[in-house]
Amino acid sequence: MTTTAAVAFAQENQGRFVGELKALLRIPSVSTTPEHAGDVRRAAEFVAAELTRIGMENVRLIETSTPEEVIVDDAGQARMVPARRGHPLVYADWLHAAGKPTVLCYGHYDVQPAEPLDEWKSPPFEPTERDGNLYARGAVDDKGQMWMHVKALESLMAAGAGTLPVNVRVIVEGEEEVGGEGIAAFVREHGEQLKADVALVSDTEMFAPELPTLCVGLRGMIYTEIEVHGARTDLHSGIYGGSAPNPFVALAQVIAKLKDEDGRILIPGFYDDVQKPSADELKAWRALPFDEDHYRESEVGSIALTGEPGLSVQERTWARPTLEVHGMPGGFIGAGAKTVIPAKAVAKVSMRLVPDMTPAESFAKYKSYVESLTPKGVSLEVRLIHSGDPIIVSTDNEYVKAATEAMREVFGKETVFVRGGGSIPIVGDFVRELKIPTVLMGFGLPDDNLHAPNEKFHLVNFHRGIESIVRFLSGVGA
Amino acid sequence: MTTTAAVAFAQENQGRFVGELKALLRIPSVSTTPEHAGDVRRAAEFVAAELTRIGMENVRLIETSTPEEVIVDDAGQARMVPARRGHPLVYADWLHAAGKPTVLCYGHYDVQPAEPLDEWKSPPFEPTERDGNLYARGAVDDKGQMWMHVKALESLMAAGAGTLPVNVRVIVEGEEEVGGEGIAAFVREHGEQLKADVALVSDTEMFAPELPTLCVGLRGMIYTEIEVHGARTDLHSGIYGGSAPNPFVALAQVIAKLKDEDGRILIPGFYDDVQKPSADELKAWRALPFDEDHYRESEVGSIALTGEPGLSVQERTWARPTLEVHGMPGGFIGAGAKTVIPAKAVAKVSMRLVPDMTPAESFAKYKSYVESLTPKGVSLEVRLIHSGDPIIVSTDNEYVKAATEAMREVFGKETVFVRGGGSIPIVGDFVRELKIPTVLMGFGLPDDNLHAPNEKFHLVNFHRGIESIVRFLSGVGA
Repeated sequence: MTTTAAVAFAQENQGRFVGELKALLRIPSVSTTPEHAGDVRRAAEFVAAELTRIGMENVRLIETSTPEEVIVDDAGQARMVPARRGHPLVYADWLHAAGKPTVLCYGHYDVQPAEPLDEWKSPPFEPTERDGNLYARGAVDDKGQMWMHVKALESLMAAGAGTLPVNVRVIVEGEEEVGGEGIAAFVREHGEQLKADVALVSDTEMFAPELPTLCVGLRGMIYTEIEVHGARTDLHSGIYGGSAPNPFVALAQVIAKLKDEDGRILIPGFYDDVQKPSADELKAWRALPFDEDHYRESEVGSIALTGEPGLSVQERTWARPTLEVHGMPGGFIGAGAKTVIPAKAVAKVSMRLVPDMTPAESFAKYKSYVESLTPKGVSLEVRLIHSGDPIIVSTDNEYVKAATEAMREVFGKETVFVRGGGSIPIVGDFVRELKIPTVLMGFGLPDDNLHAPNEKFHLVNFHRGIESIVRFLSGVGA
Repeated sequence: MTTTAAVAFAQENQGRFVGELKALLRIPSVSTTPEHAGDVRRAAEFVAAELTRIGMENVRLIETSTPEEVIVDDAGQARMVPARRGHPLVYADWLHAAGKPTVLCYGHYDVQPAEPLDEWKSPPFEPTERDGNLYARGAVDDKGQMWMHVKALESLMAAGAGTLPVNVRVIVEGEEEVGGEGIAAFVREHGEQLKADVALVSDTEMFAPELPTLCVGLRGMIYTEIEVHGARTDLHSGIYGGSAPNPFVALAQVIAKLKDEDGRILIPGFYDDVQKPSADELKAWRALPFDEDHYRESEVGSIALTGEPGLSVQERTWARPTLEVHGMPGGFIGAGAKTVIPAKAVAKVSMRLVPDMTPAESFAKYKSYVESLTPKGVSLEVRLIHSGDPIIVSTDNEYVKAATEAMREVFGKETVFVRGGGSIPIVGDFVRELKIPTVLMGFGLPDDNLHAPNEKFHLVNFHRGIESIVRFLSGVGA
């Protein structure tokens, strides 16, 4: 039986699979920093080469681009930024399983920046095994999980003498961490090249160790910058303190009015379209194994949790919008003292959205409110950097059934249905443009440090993931 | 007559004087950044060598040091920082004018950081002349003004065949821009080595071009950092947004409660010891040539001025305390997007103080108020980085008279008495420890961009400054 043989192949090759993943993790494919553009492309080529080697067909890099645009620079001058090349998509397929469904396997090979570097116990781009975990930037988000797909396909190919039990298309992007505009445009404009019955995405986590989990809802987001200009140039705070506006004080005044002290967002109308989870869903969330004290101590590590009173952690992080400040560039940030009133300062502010909020309406409400708060003496610009829709995945289909059966065989347990607080904008694009459901079968753990120092992947889950995906693809093709 | 000959010597050597100043400005003696420690020392040696060459005596570098201290590092571990060497003082004297007063000439050879570099029209450490101005970091603050003292002494020495009309001590420090702890300790512990009748400081500005100015009051300051810790490590805002505290939001909430929207500081009791300027002083300020619209447009360049309503710009910047935020290190400040909830964030916050406020009491009130504002879920630490006393200089003495007479001869105008909004902590040390008055005779201009990109010194004022100091020293010795 092909499935059994494929599982056996995966088990026999565990060491090699991890070794290959390490090689991929050594490539610092940080998509947000221009100086890593060459590394990002190298990672794409690495994935494409492996897809070719295992027997996938029509393997190619698809170039993406950002259209020409006009921006206003720091000196207030408008200038044209020419259309520029983005990070490529990697495409592959194998479409010879006549009469069987087609699965679209999605992943991303780009990673978040690794800063702050001095908080990593081992260097972020030198993958290191400790206590059964593989530590590296991208270990779980998403190179490790994307590699599970590739290795499941290899195992099935090996067991099937170069054939697969289902039709498969693979699309791997390199801009997920910077908004995924390239793949969104490709799905919109060339959706027929990705025609499939279901998408498989492994970019989420299990609710707890040993607990097979399907994610059936994701928050959307809008990522913005508020730029405040005061004086024309940096000024000496001795000479001008008392007459010149201070952009950081202005930003603090604005930010303090965006959220109240309980974490409730104060933007007028922001909650208008928020849908409450169903009574059944809330009941299922309450039944999950969850110890709030343990979560606070071992995952968050703060002296108290924050957020809207009267709602559970699950409801606050999965089903409620939030607003966060990620950094405030400008002024003097070195060691020591500089008595400057900076001419400008920026706040990087994002909001997570939940069904039925839309990025466009949410941004419009936010922008108009922030503008209305403009303090005296400064001018203020609100920019949208990127956005993604919140989504709810239907659980009522044969693919979800195949996924839960696959994971029952691997874990020996029933799957729990959860939502995720993060954003995977492509899932919304698949729903909207391709009209297909997505199975969000992820194998990360809650303490895997995504987007933070010491990101890791528990290697047992890497191997369980490969076996689950082998069984899922076989199940869909059965 | 010696004075006339010294003035003539200075006029004949204008080109050489500027050339020497350029050589000094090429040394990036940024005192706040450890990597420039060698440059700072080179600048000290440059000044010492010139003092020796012109005939001053007992020229030497005096080492300063910072005492051993215990700090708490980012990981929460306390560790000992050993006593370390500071930046040296440069000392020189000439004490053979029997029966004449002794003038203590003070200046500083260290400079502010030059960032943001991309806003400089010519590189900050490549002095460049344009339109009669010399552009460089430190051109006016204070290398250029300190060099006026050295060149005035050289001119008097040349005219007097190696003698001076008064006794002179010179003390030049390298830590003015980082709080001046080294010189403060030296004045406190070895005041007898600086025994003098009056101090001359040229580190202030003229109220307007062509208007000889003496500064008779300076604001003090406290420079602080507020460090906020939330989660133990950086977290993904998708997964934890809604439950984890955000240090930047917490800082914004704190900062928004430090100053109201009119610029009034909200720290309880902060204004208790603020003395209102005398009716005479306020009347003199109102008589100064000052066009608020022009000041706003050409100096500040903001759409409106800020500060306490009902008070003039002079009163707000010279005689009222203020609070400024200089930078907010932490989180993600690169281009693009990173969806991190940072574990910690810092705000660099300083306050200017006026008579009769004291740094110690002001900091205690501030610290206790900030701590009382600590938002939910975070811990907060308030640190004092450095401080300086506010001071008022007596105008009722022969030295002020000598200064006004010297400047009348050079400018053909009566001197105006103003205050400065900035801090020169050493002036307070001279009053307190040496019991001597200070003449604050400065030749900068309001648009000289101190502490900002494109700092400059109007070269006409450099030369007028040298002549004024020649005449002042001659006058004191007459």
